[in-house]
Amino acid sequence: MGLGVVAQLVRLGVVGSTSDHASVVSINLFVALLCACIVLGHLLEENRWVNESITALIIGLCTGVVILLTTKGKSSHILVFSEDLFFIYLLPPIIFNAGFQVKKKQFFRNFMTITLFGAVGTMISFFTISLGAIAIFSRMNIGTLDVGDFLAIGAIFSATDSVCTLQNFDLNHIDVAVVLKFLGNFCYLFLSSTFLGVFVGLLSAYMIKKLYIGRHSTDREVALMMLMAYLSYMLAELLDLSGILTVFFCGIVMSHYTWHNVTESSRVTTKHAFATLSFIAETFLFLYVGMDALDIEKWEFASDSPGKSIGISSILLGLVLVGRAAFVFPLSFLSNLTKKTPLEKITWRQQIVIWWAGLMRGAVSIALAYNKFTRSGHTQLHGNAIMITSTITVVLFSTMVFGMMTKPLIRFLLPASSNTVTSEPSSPKSLHSPLLTSMQGSDLETATANIVRPSSLRMLLSKPTHTVHYYWRKFDDALMRPMFGGRGFVPFSPGSPTEQSVHGGR
Amino acid sequence: MGLGVVAQLVRLGVVGSTSDHASVVSINLFVALLCACIVLGHLLEENRWVNESITALIIGLCTGVVILLTTKGKSSHILVFSEDLFFIYLLPPIIFNAGFQVKKKQFFRNFMTITLFGAVGTMISFFTISLGAIAIFSRMNIGTLDVGDFLAIGAIFSATDSVCTLQNFDLNHIDVAVVLKFLGNFCYLFLSSTFLGVFVGLLSAYMIKKLYIGRHSTDREVALMMLMAYLSYMLAELLDLSGILTVFFCGIVMSHYTWHNVTESSRVTTKHAFATLSFIAETFLFLYVGMDALDIEKWEFASDSPGKSIGISSILLGLVLVGRAAFVFPLSFLSNLTKKTPLEKITWRQQIVIWWAGLMRGAVSIALAYNKFTRSGHTQLHGNAIMITSTITVVLFSTMVFGMMTKPLIRFLLPASSNTVTSEPSSPKSLHSPLLTSMQGSDLETATANIVRPSSLRMLLSKPTHTVHYYWRKFDDALMRPMFGGRGFVPFSPGSPTEQSVHGGR
Repeated sequence: MGLGVVAQLVRLGVVGSTSDHASVVSINLFVALLCACIVLGHLLEENRWVNESITALIIGLCTGVVILLTTKGKSSHILVFSEDLFFIYLLPPIIFNAGFQVKKKQFFRNFMTITLFGAVGTMISFFTISLGAIAIFSRMNIGTLDVGDFLAIGAIFSATDSVCTLQNFDLNHIDVAVVLKFLGNFCYLFLSSTFLGVFVGLLSAYMIKKLYIGRHSTDREVALMMLMAYLSYMLAELLDLSGILTVFFCGIVMSHYTWHNVTESSRVTTKHAFATLSFIAETFLFLYVGMDALDIEKWEFASDSPGKSIGISSILLGLVLVGRAAFVFPLSFLSNLTKKTPLEKITWRQQIVIWWAGLMRGAVSIALAYNKFTRSGHTQLHGNAIMITSTITVVLFSTMVFGMMTKPLIRFLLPASSNTVTSEPSSPKSLHSPLLTSMQGSDLETATANIVRPSSLRMLLSKPTHTVHYYWRKFDDALMRPMFGGRGFVPFSPGSPTEQSVHGGR
Repeated sequence: MGLGVVAQLVRLGVVGSTSDHASVVSINLFVALLCACIVLGHLLEENRWVNESITALIIGLCTGVVILLTTKGKSSHILVFSEDLFFIYLLPPIIFNAGFQVKKKQFFRNFMTITLFGAVGTMISFFTISLGAIAIFSRMNIGTLDVGDFLAIGAIFSATDSVCTLQNFDLNHIDVAVVLKFLGNFCYLFLSSTFLGVFVGLLSAYMIKKLYIGRHSTDREVALMMLMAYLSYMLAELLDLSGILTVFFCGIVMSHYTWHNVTESSRVTTKHAFATLSFIAETFLFLYVGMDALDIEKWEFASDSPGKSIGISSILLGLVLVGRAAFVFPLSFLSNLTKKTPLEKITWRQQIVIWWAGLMRGAVSIALAYNKFTRSGHTQLHGNAIMITSTITVVLFSTMVFGMMTKPLIRFLLPASSNTVTSEPSSPKSLHSPLLTSMQGSDLETATANIVRPSSLRMLLSKPTHTVHYYWRKFDDALMRPMFGGRGFVPFSPGSPTEQSVHGGR
C-alpha cells in the first residue's frame, strides 16, 4: 500500500470500526493519548484544581473536538463503546487492584460501618433517586421511559453492581413475594460471588505453595496470579454472578496468602503491575468518556430542546446530592451512637467529606448507562438518548467541577490531614500505601500484649470486632496459613534460582 | 438469565463467536487452559522430552478433540483466529521482550555473523524453498496455486517479517527494475523500522529522565514504558513498516537507557512483567495452534486424498531442512574464514545444533499462513486449504517431534554445555538470564585496561568489532547517556517517595 492510500485510510479511519486499518488508527490514537495523559498528569501533579481523571477527561474532550472538526461533524468517537471492552477488559484490573491493595486490617475492623454505608446506604440512595426521578420526570415529557427505566436511573447513579439484579424483575407486579425473591436473589448473588472469589484466591495460594517451593520461577508465578485473578472474574460472569465482588475478594485473599508464597521479585512485580494495569484502565476510561461526550449521534437525538437536557441533568445531579446526603448523615449518626470515645466518632466535617467524596460518578455509572440504554453503542430512542446524554453530563460535571473543588474543600475542612488525603479515592497515589507497611502494622499489634483474650460473652458484645479478629487470627494461624501459606509461613526467596538477587550486579 | 439458559448457551457457545456469552465462554476456557499449561509445564520441567511449547500444543490438541466430540464434529475451535489478535496483541509482547532481554554486548559483538545468518541466510532459505516448491508442487495437482503462492510458501517457512514485502509485487514480470525496486523497498523498510524503534526508545528515555527526576512514581513509569513500547509497534503498523523490527530495537534501546532512569521497583517490575506477558502470549499461541489443528472445516477441504496431504507436508518439511542446511553450513564456513583463533570458530557440532534449533517453525509461520491463505479465519479454496493444513502439520510436527529430540541431541553433541543450553530458544527459562548480569559483565570489561585504544587503520581492519565498540562507547558516554540517561548517569532511586523500600517492613 503506497503512502497515498495510507493517508486516505487515515482520513477515513474515523468512519466505521470494522476495517483493520481503522482499528490500527484507533489504537495508535488511544495509546498516544494515554501517554499524553500520564505526562500531563504528572506535570499538573502540584496543581490544586486538577487531578489525573480530570486531565484525562479534558484531553478526551479536546480530542473529540478535533475529530469532530476534522470529519466535519460526522463522528466524534472512533472506537465504539463496547460493553465487552469495559466489563471484560477494563473493569477487572481496576476492581482487583482495589481488593489487592485494600488495607485489610482497617477494612475488616470497620467492616460493620463499611457494610452499613455500602449496602444500606446504597439502598437508601437508590430509593431516593428512583422515587425522585419518578416523581419529577414523569411530569416532564421526555419520551418513552417506564418504571423500570426510572429504577435503572436510581441504580446507575447509586452504582453498585449487585443492584443490577433489580433489572431482571417484572416491576409491574411488586408485592411481598417479589420483594422476598429479590432479597433472596441478592443474598445468593452476594454470598456465592464472595465464595467464588475466596475459593479461587485460596486455590491460587495452594497451587503456588505446592508447586514452587524450592524451585521458584518468578515469571510463572506472576503469570499464574494474573491469570487466576482474571479467571475468577470471568467465571463469575459465566455463572451470572457479580464479577466485581468476586474479583474484589479474590484480590483480598491473594494479598493475604498467595502474595507471600512467591519470590521477592514476584511480590514487587505483582504489586506494581496490578497497580499499573488498574491505572491504565481507569485513564483509558476517562479518556473515552471525554471523547464520547461529543458524540453527535446522541446529542442530535436529544437536542430537541437544549434547555430540557440541561434541566434533566441538573435534576439528576441534585438527586445524586440529595440521595447521598440521605444516608451519609443519618447513618453516621447511627454509627456514632455505638462508639464510646469521641476519637472514634465521625465528626460533622468528616461527614461532609464522606458525602462530597462519593458524589463523583465515574466508570461504573457510564458503563451501566450504556448497558441499559443503548444497542451496540448507538442510541436509538429519544428517551434513551436523553438518559445517556444526561448521564454523561452528570459524570463529566461531577468529576470535573466537584473534583476540582475537592482539594481546596478538604484543605478547608480537614487542615491537619490535608497532606495525606488525596482528592480522588481511586487515584494511584493512594494505592502506593504499601501492603508491607499495613501488614507490618497488623503484625506489631498482634505481637503486643495488648490483645486481651476475650473471656466472656460480655466482651464479645462490647468489643465485637476485636473478638472476631482474635478468633480469626487463631483460626488463620492454626488452619489456613499452614495450608495456604502467608506471611511467616513460607521461607523467603529473593528470586528464581537462575536469577540474580535484585541487588546483585548493579 | 436463568441457569437453564446459561447451560444452553454454554452448549451452543462453540457455534459462532458473535454472541457476548460465547466470548465469555471462550475466554474462560482459554484462561483456564493457560493456567493448566503453566502448572503442567512446571511439573514436566525435568522431563527430557517435553518442554512448555509442546505441553501447550498437546493440551490444545486434547481440548480440540474434546470439543470436537462434544459438538459431534461441528467445530473444534471456539475462537476464530483473527490476524488482528495475533499481529496486534500477541506478537508485540513476544518480540519486545526478546529485544529487551537481548544480551546487547554479545549481540553487537557478533552483529556481522548475526546479520549474515539472519538476512543472507534467510534469503538463501527462501529461494531454496520457493524453487523447490515450484519444482515439485507444480507437477502435482493441488488446486489453484500460482507463482505468488509458491513464493509465499518460501517466505512463510523462512519466516522473516521483512520478506513479506515480496507479496506486494507483480510477480509475472520479474526483471532487473523489479529486483532493484524490491531491494530498495527492503532497505527502506529495514532502515525506517529500525529508526522508528530507536527514536521511540530514546524519546521514552528522555521523557522519563526529564519528568521524574526527584519525583519518581513507579506505576507511572512502568505504564509509560509499556505504552510507548506498544506505541512503537502500532506506529510501525500504521506507517506500513515492519512492526517486528521496530519493537525489537525499541526494546534494545529501552533496556540500555530508559530502564536505568526508573526506580529500582520499576526495574524489577518491568523486567518481569515484560517476560511474563511474553510467556503468556506464546503459550496462548501454541494452545490455539493445537486446538485449531483439528478444525474440521480445513480438513474437509483438504481431505480428498489424505495421502496427498501427508505427502505435501513431508515435502515441505524436507524443504525446510534442506533450506536451512543450505545456508547454515556454507555461511558458517565463510564466517570461520574470518576468525583467527580456533576458539572463535563454529565447530561442526555447533553447526548441527544451529541447523537443528532453527527447524522448529512456530508462531510467525502460522500467522503468515493464515494471513495469506484465509479470509476471516475460514478457508475456502482447495489449494489454500491444503497449504494451511500442511503448514499446521509442519509446525506441529517440527515443534513436537524435533522439539522432543532436541534435549537429547544437545546432550549428545555438546555434553559440556548441556546444563546451560535450553531446548527451546524462546523458552522463558532462557529469558531469566538477568540484564543485570550481562550489564555487569560489560561494565567490567570496559573498566579493565584490556581495551587498547585503536591507533591505526590496521587495527580497525583487523579487529573491526572491537574498534566499533570502542568508538561507540565513547560516543555513548559523551553524548547519548548524558541526554538520555543510562547506567551510571542517573541517581539511584529505590522506589516512589510514598513507597517503602522493597525490604522495609517485611
